[in-house]
Amino acid sequence: MSSHHVDAFAPRRMLLAGRDAERVAADLARALPELETRTVRHGPLTEEDAAWADSYVGFTVPPGLERSGIRWMHLPMAGVDRVVADLAGTDVVLTRTVGAMPRRIGSYVLAHLLADAWHLREYAAQQLVARWEPLGPARVEGSTAVVLGTGEIGSGVAGALRAGGYRTVGVNTRGTAAPAFDDVVALTDAGPHLAECAALVGALPLTDATRGLIDAGLLARLDSAVVVNVGRGASLVPDDLRAALDAGHVRRAVLDVHETEPLPAEDWRWRDPRVTVTPHISGPTEPQDVVEAVLGAYEALTAGRRPPLAVDLGRGY
Amino acid sequence: MSSHHVDAFAPRRMLLAGRDAERVAADLARALPELETRTVRHGPLTEEDAAWADSYVGFTVPPGLERSGIRWMHLPMAGVDRVVADLAGTDVVLTRTVGAMPRRIGSYVLAHLLADAWHLREYAAQQLVARWEPLGPARVEGSTAVVLGTGEIGSGVAGALRAGGYRTVGVNTRGTAAPAFDDVVALTDAGPHLAECAALVGALPLTDATRGLIDAGLLARLDSAVVVNVGRGASLVPDDLRAALDAGHVRRAVLDVHETEPLPAEDWRWRDPRVTVTPHISGPTEPQDVVEAVLGAYEALTAGRRPPLAVDLGRGY
Repeated sequence: MSSHHVDAFAPRRMLLAGRDAERVAADLARALPELETRTVRHGPLTEEDAAWADSYVGFTVPPGLERSGIRWMHLPMAGVDRVVADLAGTDVVLTRTVGAMPRRIGSYVLAHLLADAWHLREYAAQQLVARWEPLGPARVEGSTAVVLGTGEIGSGVAGALRAGGYRTVGVNTRGTAAPAFDDVVALTDAGPHLAECAALVGALPLTDATRGLIDAGLLARLDSAVVVNVGRGASLVPDDLRAALDAGHVRRAVLDVHETEPLPAEDWRWRDPRVTVTPHISGPTEPQDVVEAVLGAYEALTAGRRPPLAVDLGRGY
Repeated sequence: MSSHHVDAFAPRRMLLAGRDAERVAADLARALPELETRTVRHGPLTEEDAAWADSYVGFTVPPGLERSGIRWMHLPMAGVDRVVADLAGTDVVLTRTVGAMPRRIGSYVLAHLLADAWHLREYAAQQLVARWEPLGPARVEGSTAVVLGTGEIGSGVAGALRAGGYRTVGVNTRGTAAPAFDDVVALTDAGPHLAECAALVGALPLTDATRGLIDAGLLARLDSAVVVNVGRGASLVPDDLRAALDAGHVRRAVLDVHETEPLPAEDWRWRDPRVTVTPHISGPTEPQDVVEAVLGAYEALTAGRRPPLAVDLGRGY
């Protein structure tokens, strides 16, 4: 872990890139009159842009960053895996946006689990033939959801699922407690929970340790569970998921993230009735979330505090 | 309202009828060794059965009740509309079963609202043609659900919807406050809430005042809302619902209760893609709920207290 202290730094010239750059810049200018902004909505950033700025908000690391005066980069999203390598070895402070995203992802997961628990698909099929036939109780009460990852997203998922009636067990590297969960265990101790859970939710950042973590070995410990992935696509091995569906370890899969996006049209997941594919929509980051995150980080940096959403570049999240 | 005091009465011979009678009787016998039970699983009750008993658990009023020694009838469900008329004028204490049913109904409503809010149906259609296309944000944050009825079921619905991120406004006769809701208003003051709500949930008991309450006049105040009925079917006028769907006041309807059940196969609701029909499955009452309710009422009656779940036969709920 990095120290909680950083050298005080008052950004004056902020470069903003991407779809919502103008809107975010306008909101920031209102809140911080002393901050000058420059926006680049489309196209690549130039070295001149980077040389002008002391701070930057965007999705990719601008060229020549190491030769520029940029000391702070803010990412308008939560997942940092696409930029950490480019920033390794620099002393740039990287911050990211969380905002209401964990709550939104939690709501997405709850929506899909409740739809399954209440047999929405099966009743819709019965309705087509006007069949009046109760299908047994909803699979919610007394059910456990295991959540891989206990960070902001995992905690957002746990909050939503607990509110929806599930018992939640979080899994992280060392079993470090996290308040959003009923229980947290280390991955090495997760076996009994995996064996009895109704749902396994992937809410992992993408690092060397999590790439392919949801593989045949882990999936084989499940017994007819629903698997939901809202973390990063590459944390799940697609062929292993298919085998686990065939073997009955997994009853159904709900995948909002995929190792390649958009998911290619020929991919088996589109056509498998046991799989629900959505186009990475569970956790949109809204411009207002970005503005709030930038303001929070700005305040911390000018006061010489390490921003709460600063990324540990060595750890990768 | 009836008084909170009743003459102390210690039931000794309980008659139980219906599907789960044996199971409920066995659990009661364990908890109350002094209580003698007789069960009738199938077929009509005889006057002899009723004459033997001083208390009764079942779905219908036994013949000759007024000539029997039965002083307490417990209903293994929540809705009392089918028995209140038969008990009018007697001094039989009627109690009913609530248990986890309101929480289950709340979960059902949340499942259907979240499925709609997260576009599950639309994404399923896109998946069939491998279309990767985000459909805009989920319709949850900042959305209001208006719940007609603030009793146990309405409160269960409000609890689930608040936990799921909705603002909840309850509607009852006089606007009497109810803690499960963000706000409660009288029906006469509900107009502005109806105009802006994302969902209207019917959670009403069936009485003369609620029969046909959800009619053209009420539905016309909605603007593209989802209507969910989990109370009693006859509180909603089906033809008025169809007209409100055609006019756009209602965007979608989710109906778990119907004025005739099973819903006849030729009914338009089965075939309308804007309507979801389920076969009265949102609020199952489990035998354990019945046992707990009977034990609670038994304890109150033997102590001379009015059971909390006693029904006001005059009011009808």
